[in-house]
Amino acid sequence: MDEKNKLVSNAAGREVLIEINGEEHSPYKGVGKHIPEGNKAAPKINSCSQFPDSGDKRVESIKEALKRSGLRDGMTISTHHHLRNGDYVANMVFDAVAELGIKNVRWFPSASFPIHTPIIKHLESGVIHHIEGSMNGPLGDFASSGKMKGIGILRSHGGRYQAIQDGEVHIDIAVISAPAADSFGNANGVRGKAACGLLGFALADSQYADKTIIVTDNIEPFPCIPWQIQGNYVDHVVEVDSIGDPEKIVSGTTKLTKSPDRLLIAELAVQFALEAGIIKDGFSFQAGAGGTSLAFTIFLGNIMRENKIKARFIRGGSTTYLTSMLEEGLTDYILDGQTFDLDGVRSMRDNPNHQNTSPFTSYNYHGKGNFASMLDVVVLGATEVDLNFNANVVTHSDGKLLHGIGGWQNCLFGKTVILPLPLFRNRIPVIVDKVTTITGPGELIDVIVTERGIAINPRRTDLIKKLSGSKLPLRTLEELKAEAEKICGGAPEKPQLMDNVIAAIKWVDGTVIDIVRQVKY
Amino acid sequence: MDEKNKLVSNAAGREVLIEINGEEHSPYKGVGKHIPEGNKAAPKINSCSQFPDSGDKRVESIKEALKRSGLRDGMTISTHHHLRNGDYVANMVFDAVAELGIKNVRWFPSASFPIHTPIIKHLESGVIHHIEGSMNGPLGDFASSGKMKGIGILRSHGGRYQAIQDGEVHIDIAVISAPAADSFGNANGVRGKAACGLLGFALADSQYADKTIIVTDNIEPFPCIPWQIQGNYVDHVVEVDSIGDPEKIVSGTTKLTKSPDRLLIAELAVQFALEAGIIKDGFSFQAGAGGTSLAFTIFLGNIMRENKIKARFIRGGSTTYLTSMLEEGLTDYILDGQTFDLDGVRSMRDNPNHQNTSPFTSYNYHGKGNFASMLDVVVLGATEVDLNFNANVVTHSDGKLLHGIGGWQNCLFGKTVILPLPLFRNRIPVIVDKVTTITGPGELIDVIVTERGIAINPRRTDLIKKLSGSKLPLRTLEELKAEAEKICGGAPEKPQLMDNVIAAIKWVDGTVIDIVRQVKY
Repeated sequence: MDEKNKLVSNAAGREVLIEINGEEHSPYKGVGKHIPEGNKAAPKINSCSQFPDSGDKRVESIKEALKRSGLRDGMTISTHHHLRNGDYVANMVFDAVAELGIKNVRWFPSASFPIHTPIIKHLESGVIHHIEGSMNGPLGDFASSGKMKGIGILRSHGGRYQAIQDGEVHIDIAVISAPAADSFGNANGVRGKAACGLLGFALADSQYADKTIIVTDNIEPFPCIPWQIQGNYVDHVVEVDSIGDPEKIVSGTTKLTKSPDRLLIAELAVQFALEAGIIKDGFSFQAGAGGTSLAFTIFLGNIMRENKIKARFIRGGSTTYLTSMLEEGLTDYILDGQTFDLDGVRSMRDNPNHQNTSPFTSYNYHGKGNFASMLDVVVLGATEVDLNFNANVVTHSDGKLLHGIGGWQNCLFGKTVILPLPLFRNRIPVIVDKVTTITGPGELIDVIVTERGIAINPRRTDLIKKLSGSKLPLRTLEELKAEAEKICGGAPEKPQLMDNVIAAIKWVDGTVIDIVRQVKY
Repeated sequence: MDEKNKLVSNAAGREVLIEINGEEHSPYKGVGKHIPEGNKAAPKINSCSQFPDSGDKRVESIKEALKRSGLRDGMTISTHHHLRNGDYVANMVFDAVAELGIKNVRWFPSASFPIHTPIIKHLESGVIHHIEGSMNGPLGDFASSGKMKGIGILRSHGGRYQAIQDGEVHIDIAVISAPAADSFGNANGVRGKAACGLLGFALADSQYADKTIIVTDNIEPFPCIPWQIQGNYVDHVVEVDSIGDPEKIVSGTTKLTKSPDRLLIAELAVQFALEAGIIKDGFSFQAGAGGTSLAFTIFLGNIMRENKIKARFIRGGSTTYLTSMLEEGLTDYILDGQTFDLDGVRSMRDNPNHQNTSPFTSYNYHGKGNFASMLDVVVLGATEVDLNFNANVVTHSDGKLLHGIGGWQNCLFGKTVILPLPLFRNRIPVIVDKVTTITGPGELIDVIVTERGIAINPRRTDLIKKLSGSKLPLRTLEELKAEAEKICGGAPEKPQLMDNVIAAIKWVDGTVIDIVRQVKY
C-alpha cells in the first residue's frame, strides 16, 4: 500500500483514506460528532456592468459557453440528474470539453446514469480525471474495475450541498439542463418537452459555481416563472434541440411491485407504523419511488382513509400515488425533491401545495436544521444490513459500486427509520455479519421489516415497548439472518477485492465513513 | 474639518468622505466604472447537530433570542421595513437591547419610519451608535440636527443587498418580522393579521447574518409555505402578541392624486411614452405607489385597453391598480418588490402570476445582471433635479434628510427613465442649478415631465428624434427652470448647512456618491 492509500480507522470501525485525490479529508467521527469550523464558500463578486443590460445571455453553443467560462485543464464541471436516464446534456458537455482539448477535468454530477456510458471514453482518454457523484450502473462498474484515474467520491444529496457550501468542492463551471428557461437564465423544470418537475439538485451549483451555464430546449420570454434557478446566478444560456428523452426522464406511470413477498413486506411495515402510534393526524412520512415503497404508500393511504387520518406533509420523490393523496386531501402538502412521473410534474406545476424543495432545505446537515429530522417515519431500501443495523446502499455483496447514496443518508435522521427488505435477493442473504460498505450507521436505523419477520433496533426501547403485545412477527436480526442463511445455503460469498481504493463514501457532514476497493473481475 | 471628515472629490463632482465610522469606502467613479474585486461574504458554517431535531426553534422572548444570539456591544442588528409605518418589532428589539445593557449597536434597517421615533432615546443614550438605512421623517430629522453619534449611510434596496453580499456590512443579528411563520423559521408575508405580502427586503439578512431571529404573531404548523424566508437560515423563533398595526402596514385603498396639475403630469408622461413607441405588446413598466405614479398607471392602463396592448410584466410596488390590470389580462405578470394595499397582498397570495421578488433578483448591481435594466419604462419621483438631469430623492432643498433611496437608484437602469415632477412644491422650484444631494446621475435620467413642459435629456437623441413632430410641450430644463423661478419669485434659498457630515449616500455599487451635512436648526 503506497503513501496515497494511507488508511485511518474511523468511528464506524472502518479503515478509510483521508487523503483523496491529493486533498485532505476527515474520518467519520460518529453521528453529530464532527462540528464544522470556518466559513462557507465565498463566490466571486460580479458586476451588472459586465452583463448585458437587455438581460439576454444567450450564446450559440455549449462549446462557446465553456470557452467564455474560461474552461481550463483540471477544472471542475458540475451537472444535475433531474433528467435521470434521459439526460442528453452531460454527454454533449464532455464531447465539447474533449473537442476543446481540455484534460483532467473533475466531473461533479449530482448523479450519473447508464445513459452516460459514452463518457467512459473521456475517462479513458484523460479528458475526465474522475467522477465525484453517484455512479449508477456502467460508470460504477468502470470505477469498480479500477480504470478511473482518480478516486471517486460519493455523497448524499445533502452531503453534496454541504460539500459545495463548505467550499470542500469548488465548482468552476456548473452546467444546468433546464426544461424551461428565459434568456436571462431563470429556469425551471415544470414546462417543456423535457419537463422533470424541479431543479433542486442544481441549486447549490448555481449559488456557488464561478460560472453557470443554462442549457435548454425551451426558451420562454422573460420572466420564466417559477425561477427554480435564478438568472441572477447565471452567466450564459445555450439553446439546443433537445436536452433529453422525455420517456426516460419521467415515466408515464410508476410501477408498483407485483411480488407477493414485497407486498407483504410493505403491508407489515405499514402495520408496524400503525401499531407504533406513528400514523396519526398531522404526521409526516417519506417513502421512495421503488416498488416496495410505492406499495407502502398505497397501503398507508388505505389505513389513513379508513381511519380518517390526514398527514401534514409527505416528502417526495413524487409519483401519481402521492399526488392523488394530495388531491384527495390525505395530506396538506407534498414537499418534493424530485418528480418521478408525469402526474408529479403536473401537480408540482399546478398545485401550490405541491412544494418543490432542495437539498438545502431538506438535507443539508451544515445548515440551521433541515427537514429530514422532522419526518415521523421514513421508509428506505438497502443492499445489505448487518447485525448492528448498519446498512449499505452503494455496493452489492460482490463489492461492485453500482448505486448512489441519493437522499438515503439524510433521511436516516427521520424520527423512525424503517427498512423494508427482502430477506434475500437472487438467493443472496441481505442480513450479513459486516456490510461490504457502510453507508449509514445502525444507530439511526430503527426497524428492519422482512417477509419473515420484523427486527426492532434494541436502542429503540420505546418501540419495543409499544409493540410488546403485537401479533406482528417480531424477531431479532440474528434470527432473521440465520433463517435466510438456512434457506440460501449459507452467508454470501466474500467479495474478491484488491487493495486499490476506487471510491470514498462521505457521511452527511463531509467525513469519510467508508471506502470502496477495486473488484477482481 | 478634522481628520474624520477628510473629503475626496468623486466622479459626480462632489466632495465625499471615504472614511466613514472608521471604515474605508470608495468614492463614486461613474456609472459602471467601479468593478468589484474579491469574494462575497462567507457566513459561518453551522451543523444540524446544534439545532433541535424537532425543528422547533422557539424561545420565549426577543430578549432571550438576542441573548442566545450572543449580542454584544458594537454589534450590528438588522430589521426590514415591510411593515412600514405599522412596525412594532424594531422598537421592541431596541428596548430589549437597552434592557440588556448593550451599547454602541449599529442599526441596519432596510428603512425606518416615523413609528420608530421612540428609538431616538436609544440613539441619545448610546444604545445605538448610528443608523445605516433610510431614515424617513423624524429619525432623518434627528440625524440632520447632528445628534446621531455616528454617520448614517443610505443605500438603495439593491445597494443594501450588495453591501451585505459583498461583506461591506456584516450583520451579527438579523431580526425578521414575519406575518406567518412556523417554529422552524420558514416565514412569509401573505397570511396573518399583519400580512404585508412579501419579505424580500430581509432576504440578504437571512442569508448572510450570523444569527437570524424570526419574530411573529402567527405561528403555523410546519411547513409554512411559501417560505419567502427559509427556516434553514433561522436560529430562533419568537412569538409576540402583535408585530404591527395592520392599518399602517397596508392601506385598505391606495389613494390616487386629486391635484389637477399632478393628473396632467401623469397624462403627459403616458402620452410621451406612447409617442416614443415604448407602449407596445410585450413591453414592461414600473411605477411607484405615489399619487402621480398611480395616475400614470391608470392612464397607461386606459391606453393599453384602447389599443389592445398587453404588457409582459409590470414591476410593483403593487396596488389594487396593478392587480386589476393583471386580473384583466393587461399583463402576464406582476414582479413585485412590496405590496402597498390589501389587494396586493391577496393577489400575491392567490395568483401565481403575481410573483414576489427580492432586491437580489431585481436590483443587486453586483450580480450577474438584474431585472432593473430590462424595464422598458420606469416612472420615478425626485425632490430636486438639476440642469444636467442629476436628481435628489433624499434631502429637501432646506438640506434636511427626510427620505430613503428605496429602489430609486436601481430603477435608473431602466431603458427609459421618466421623472414626472411638479415644477414647484410649496412655491419652491424643483429644477435647480445644483441638487442639494446627488442621489442619481443625470446620464441615467431621460425625461423630466412637468405640468408646464417636458424636457428630454440631450443624450437621448433617439427620443428627441422620435418626438420631433409631437404636439407635446417639449422644452429645455433651462426654460422650465426659468419659468418656475418667475412664478415662485426666484431660485430656492440655499440650505443653511454646517461642516459636520451626518450621512453618506451610496451608489448602487457601494461607492459614495454624495454626503449630507448637518442643518442649522
